[in-house]
Amino acid sequence: MAPMIPGDKYKPYTPIDLPNRAWPAKVPTKTPIWTSVDLRDGNQALINPMSGEQKLKFYQKLVEVGFKEIEVAFPSASDTDFGFVRHIIENNMIPDDVYIQVLTPAREELIRRTFESIKGAKNVILHMYNASSPLFRNVVFQNSQEQTVDLAVRHTKIVRELVDEYSKPENGGTNFKYEYSPETFTQTEMDFAVTICEEVRKAWGKASAENPIIFNLPATVEVGPPNHYADQIEYFCTNITDRPSVIVSLHPHNDRGCAVAATELGMLAGGDRVEGCLFGNGERTGNVDIVTLALNLFSQGIQPGELDLSDIQSVVDVVSGCNDIPVHPRHPYAGDLVFTAFSGSHQDAIKKGFAAQNKRIEQGDNTWEIPYLPIDPVDLGCTYEAVIRVNSQSGKGGVAYLVAQSLGLDLPRRMQVSFYQVIQEVADRTGKEMTSEDITRIFTQTYHLASLEAGRNEGRFALRGYSLSDDLSSSITSEDGDGGLSTPRLRRFTGKVLHGGKSHELTGTGNGVLSAFLDAIESTFSIKAEIREYSEHAITKSSSLQTGSNGSGSGSKAQAASYVELVDPAEKDKVGEKKCVGYWGVGIDVDITTASLKAVLSAITNISKPEKVIEEAVEVAANGKN
Amino acid sequence: MAPMIPGDKYKPYTPIDLPNRAWPAKVPTKTPIWTSVDLRDGNQALINPMSGEQKLKFYQKLVEVGFKEIEVAFPSASDTDFGFVRHIIENNMIPDDVYIQVLTPAREELIRRTFESIKGAKNVILHMYNASSPLFRNVVFQNSQEQTVDLAVRHTKIVRELVDEYSKPENGGTNFKYEYSPETFTQTEMDFAVTICEEVRKAWGKASAENPIIFNLPATVEVGPPNHYADQIEYFCTNITDRPSVIVSLHPHNDRGCAVAATELGMLAGGDRVEGCLFGNGERTGNVDIVTLALNLFSQGIQPGELDLSDIQSVVDVVSGCNDIPVHPRHPYAGDLVFTAFSGSHQDAIKKGFAAQNKRIEQGDNTWEIPYLPIDPVDLGCTYEAVIRVNSQSGKGGVAYLVAQSLGLDLPRRMQVSFYQVIQEVADRTGKEMTSEDITRIFTQTYHLASLEAGRNEGRFALRGYSLSDDLSSSITSEDGDGGLSTPRLRRFTGKVLHGGKSHELTGTGNGVLSAFLDAIESTFSIKAEIREYSEHAITKSSSLQTGSNGSGSGSKAQAASYVELVDPAEKDKVGEKKCVGYWGVGIDVDITTASLKAVLSAITNISKPEKVIEEAVEVAANGKN
Repeated sequence: MAPMIPGDKYKPYTPIDLPNRAWPAKVPTKTPIWTSVDLRDGNQALINPMSGEQKLKFYQKLVEVGFKEIEVAFPSASDTDFGFVRHIIENNMIPDDVYIQVLTPAREELIRRTFESIKGAKNVILHMYNASSPLFRNVVFQNSQEQTVDLAVRHTKIVRELVDEYSKPENGGTNFKYEYSPETFTQTEMDFAVTICEEVRKAWGKASAENPIIFNLPATVEVGPPNHYADQIEYFCTNITDRPSVIVSLHPHNDRGCAVAATELGMLAGGDRVEGCLFGNGERTGNVDIVTLALNLFSQGIQPGELDLSDIQSVVDVVSGCNDIPVHPRHPYAGDLVFTAFSGSHQDAIKKGFAAQNKRIEQGDNTWEIPYLPIDPVDLGCTYEAVIRVNSQSGKGGVAYLVAQSLGLDLPRRMQVSFYQVIQEVADRTGKEMTSEDITRIFTQTYHLASLEAGRNEGRFALRGYSLSDDLSSSITSEDGDGGLSTPRLRRFTGKVLHGGKSHELTGTGNGVLSAFLDAIESTFSIKAEIREYSEHAITKSSSLQTGSNGSGSGSKAQAASYVELVDPAEKDKVGEKKCVGYWGVGIDVDITTASLKAVLSAITNISKPEKVIEEAVEVAANGKN
Repeated sequence: MAPMIPGDKYKPYTPIDLPNRAWPAKVPTKTPIWTSVDLRDGNQALINPMSGEQKLKFYQKLVEVGFKEIEVAFPSASDTDFGFVRHIIENNMIPDDVYIQVLTPAREELIRRTFESIKGAKNVILHMYNASSPLFRNVVFQNSQEQTVDLAVRHTKIVRELVDEYSKPENGGTNFKYEYSPETFTQTEMDFAVTICEEVRKAWGKASAENPIIFNLPATVEVGPPNHYADQIEYFCTNITDRPSVIVSLHPHNDRGCAVAATELGMLAGGDRVEGCLFGNGERTGNVDIVTLALNLFSQGIQPGELDLSDIQSVVDVVSGCNDIPVHPRHPYAGDLVFTAFSGSHQDAIKKGFAAQNKRIEQGDNTWEIPYLPIDPVDLGCTYEAVIRVNSQSGKGGVAYLVAQSLGLDLPRRMQVSFYQVIQEVADRTGKEMTSEDITRIFTQTYHLASLEAGRNEGRFALRGYSLSDDLSSSITSEDGDGGLSTPRLRRFTGKVLHGGKSHELTGTGNGVLSAFLDAIESTFSIKAEIREYSEHAITKSSSLQTGSNGSGSGSKAQAASYVELVDPAEKDKVGEKKCVGYWGVGIDVDITTASLKAVLSAITNISKPEKVIEEAVEVAANGKN
């Protein structure tokens, strides 16, 4: 390959001389008027345009999301579009506070046809355009500047006449706004764009601060950087006379991938209103994405008008279903992957961020400040579980976080490392992302928390009842005085453990319940183990774990989680070295002692079949939904 | 639903007081140094990280596309990453003019491991980061500003020592550049960001105008608008001392959908270098898209450095194949739909734009200026045919354009309307997009241009031979003098027409060949018709049409195309009214007379079975590939 030489083929945009430009020093404070053009600009750009049913479904979603201005059709272009407008009017599907908008070229018969389509509607924005840019004037229409102004003025007067007629109570009594678009604004000489709009406003004759005329300034094709669009908008806003009688509307496309930026800078430069589509559908690279614009404002603490995107998945479903175009997995705010962190260090930082946030909230500070998450997924109807996803690039922090989220278990740090090795091994072997469900199932399997009936518990040790007592055979010097407390008094464990399909009677003694239990295990099963680490906590949040204990496990009773790490006593001197293998176990029960005994049996099971742990985990992962 | 109230949860960004900001008045003139981070930042964000094979394939494509700086791995994070770096070094897969870049945190053992990975490489950028933002300092690492600077300085000195060691000829003689990233730059206090970079440069001690230190300024999470990022970059560029010894590198993410804009404005503000991914892959919403950035420059007449994207589909194929993430159909420059125009008025404007452009090119003006197409698809290896696509929202211009492109036929305007009605009816009935192939097939069917053998030509009239002569039975006053020329002399047609499986002998007379032929048709088949419009042109461009005439039809011989519109003489007085139905026909032959006779038979066939035209077209469309 060789470098691409543009030569003299492509000409750069001509910057505007704007020495006192004010927009770069401004910050966003206001919300624009949002206008959806999904059913028109969006629909005309689809491989398969929407069916009538799809268009209705989409329209209803736009109303539900909170749009108060919806461009519903280009009624003179086709019977389908005309019929759609009639349908929503005749079936009373337009809320009283919603304006429907209809687009028409500057041609008399098409304008008349457009008015016929909206008869009887309560609120209508009549939107007329003509071509103002030199390219269109010269190449497509062979019109001079004067002819172009004349065309716009003449047809604006026709619109004015028809507005007067259709405003009459006997003709439907419609409330009208008038919108005019000089096409392509961004490629039109700026002084001419102002001139033609001034003339159109004169011909319209009804613009006022109370009912302003809408001048829509489209970047029909994005041909310059977003700061240039902002310059153009600021030029227009400062040069148009009687500014209060004008609503400046932005209509950017996305050919250079900067439509959102152009709109945001254009708003700083004076824009009042934005025409766009959900998730940036529209001709070629699409219209500007109103979802991103609205949530960008929201994440800056600014209410995005009356829009409600708090159930964003339902919006994704309707839009992608009707448009038959997917929302990209990396689409801001709405893509499948935008709240995920696969990287271990990211996951760790997010985990710490949530911990700090929880403390702040206790102190009455609601500020959202979490590493890597510019917005709270919950505000869009997503759950935290979706945030952290695990693949072979992930770390123990993320895995531990998921276990904490789904099972309510706060794993000891060294146990996180141990379980993470299991997950990483499984991820490596299967080559797949581990879902939250996968990790939960693998955890449950690895520590034998499923009930015995699950059938995948061959070799498992399970507690079936026990009693604890003082070991009367051990020497007791005295039960009185301080001496009694300082003298070790052995405890005796007697109980039943199910293993290999048989119930075994166990007895053993030790300084405490756990050492007595391990003694009993050693004498019955010939497995020697010592405790290296032990911890226990109450499960505060509801857990999805089925403990299988006492027939309960509903999570309604407070439960305890115990964690033990067992080592082979022969390897005890290697503690602290990586080579000393530890076997972790988990036990959950409403009784703290029972929980710790179960944890010991969980670890014992792993000691007795270490080679099977990974294999069973891989099997569990493979049989899962992934 | 109800509006979304952000309340006190989200805090706005703090603007920078930059009263003399210079970037808004600048225009892009230079190309940045492009650095791909696809194999690192991109790879770590994939649901299923790339296999070794995929990573190699991607790496080779990056080299082929022309990247001279490629971040290939985070070698200390995993054996996979470490092994990948070793593999491309040991297999001599790094061109002499390419720098591989490796990322490491500021931790001594990980830095040492990173150096081990690059031993023997010719050119290496050692890229170290540490967390500088208050959120990370306070929540994740509990470090003060002083501790954070100390950490960066201490580990930069370690890097320095190892660079000195690995630069020695006996240790591989590697050429090094050093890159330092204060993470997250955009959320760090600006004065502190400058301070820590000054201290890092001091500790590095090797920065010069000849071998500058790279300060990479990441918007790890995009939390402010693109003008704010530009302000931050301009602040950094004007406040860092000894600017020539520094390369300012931009590393934007796309959480607010403005990464491309932030980079472009950041370049105006002083950025020298851009780290990004192809098509904007990367954590969450992705890193900035280098393809869009490069082609935005190209479309402004600026050569995008050494990048070559002239076969963009091959880049799409490798990237989407390795990442297992699609390129969105509306992705700038690369999406399936970005050079398409479905709308009739758009298609018409594009058609006129190409015509004007062809004239300009003849006059030596190469300027690309086509409505709705900011860049020539051909420059990216795409064809014009892809531009114009037809659905029920399309117009006659687009259909006619496609017929002209694929068949070399320049349809008369009124015939465009007629054929467009066929296409629109088919599109409406099938509800599908019409491909260029569909339209070609429907055209061939509608005007009976397929050979008889095709079997779908029931009812067709086909010419099988003819002779033309003066009609000796008609009155001839004199063959001499002027009088002979002014006196109508009838022509006689004698020939064979195949119809209904039979060969018919025809004779007829008229003022000219066509009227004689129509007379013959009327007397044999009782079909009365008159000509309303007739035109003919040579087919200049090669046509895919199989004419079936004379066994030739290869397109190598110059051919003529004839178009006739026939009307029922009884309706002739209605000409000019919409109600007068005309029947169009097309004939193609190396002989112009034969072409026109074929055109008449093509139209006659349609007269004889008007109700079948649409049905057959729908059938053809349904049996096509769609």
